[in-house]
Amino acid sequence: MTIVELMKKRRSIRRYKISPISKHLINKIIEAASYAPSGLNRQPWFFVAISNSNLKERIRQECEEHERRFYEQVKGNFRESLSFFNLSPVKSFLTEAPYLIVVFAKKGDPYWNESMWICIGYTILKIQEERLASLTYTPPQMSFLNEMLDISKKYKPVAILPVGYPDEKVDLSKRKRKLVDQLVKFIE
Amino acid sequence: MTIVELMKKRRSIRRYKISPISKHLINKIIEAASYAPSGLNRQPWFFVAISNSNLKERIRQECEEHERRFYEQVKGNFRESLSFFNLSPVKSFLTEAPYLIVVFAKKGDPYWNESMWICIGYTILKIQEERLASLTYTPPQMSFLNEMLDISKKYKPVAILPVGYPDEKVDLSKRKRKLVDQLVKFIE
Repeated sequence: MTIVELMKKRRSIRRYKISPISKHLINKIIEAASYAPSGLNRQPWFFVAISNSNLKERIRQECEEHERRFYEQVKGNFRESLSFFNLSPVKSFLTEAPYLIVVFAKKGDPYWNESMWICIGYTILKIQEERLASLTYTPPQMSFLNEMLDISKKYKPVAILPVGYPDEKVDLSKRKRKLVDQLVKFIE
Repeated sequence: MTIVELMKKRRSIRRYKISPISKHLINKIIEAASYAPSGLNRQPWFFVAISNSNLKERIRQECEEHERRFYEQVKGNFRESLSFFNLSPVKSFLTEAPYLIVVFAKKGDPYWNESMWICIGYTILKIQEERLASLTYTPPQMSFLNEMLDISKKYKPVAILPVGYPDEKVDLSKRKRKLVDQLVKFIE
């Protein structure tokens, strides 16, 4: 499969089969992530890969609590968008997916946030190449993850990537992308 | 070539052959970029692809002026890092590369910056797949690009990607990446 086919077929997945995946696969995914470019090659990333059920349950509870508070204050257009995407404070993928990869970025390194998100782009493409599915989930509040996972405060949690086999049918006609000629202006 | 081989071989390139590349190739690169995921699928990106020599020259002059001011104030460790990477205020790639892709992000869309950098990750991988080279160049000041390229202030310039054939030998032994077991902690 070409890289563009991978990109084109990938969708964010919110339902996962409970079928386990191997630690070896997670290592292959992290290896791909490690090749991302970064400001002054500082490689400002660290990953915690969690398959422990109790811990996934605790992460889910904490995230859902923050999500409920977040949803209470959301209004207008943005609330409509959330329901259009079937988003809700219930985050069952946090316990269904066999692995959660919690992504931490080292604050203060040059372009640490920009580098981190290029790296997340690499990660989700590698997950797709392995015929697994993922989602770049960003809880409204994430700092609890440092203490829960025993990670230094120098590292900021930026996303949780559930990883597993998809348990929903991907409808490629949904979430359409803009066409190239809407996206680029040439100056020759 | 597998996606991991692409990731592994890609390096940031600062010297380009002046050999032209086709508009068709640029469109293929933008198509790949368009498949990146984004917060609520807002696709907060816009690209200006420049092959016009006069315009590239004006962009280079403006960037180098900001770079010189930036370098004057850089001190200590960070200055050493810059010289280790052979970085200087001279940005010849801005006129040597046959195309510059200026990347704009629509401020205010949910997770616009994070989405934008995933998209840049997709873009540089597609450039690599076409056996072209690139660099995610972030001038110290970029807002002049809105006026120069006639782009609404709703869009923020986030990077300039020179695109062309590399005119330097890539030494894969440099800019080494950390090993997987330094980057991940498993909790099972």
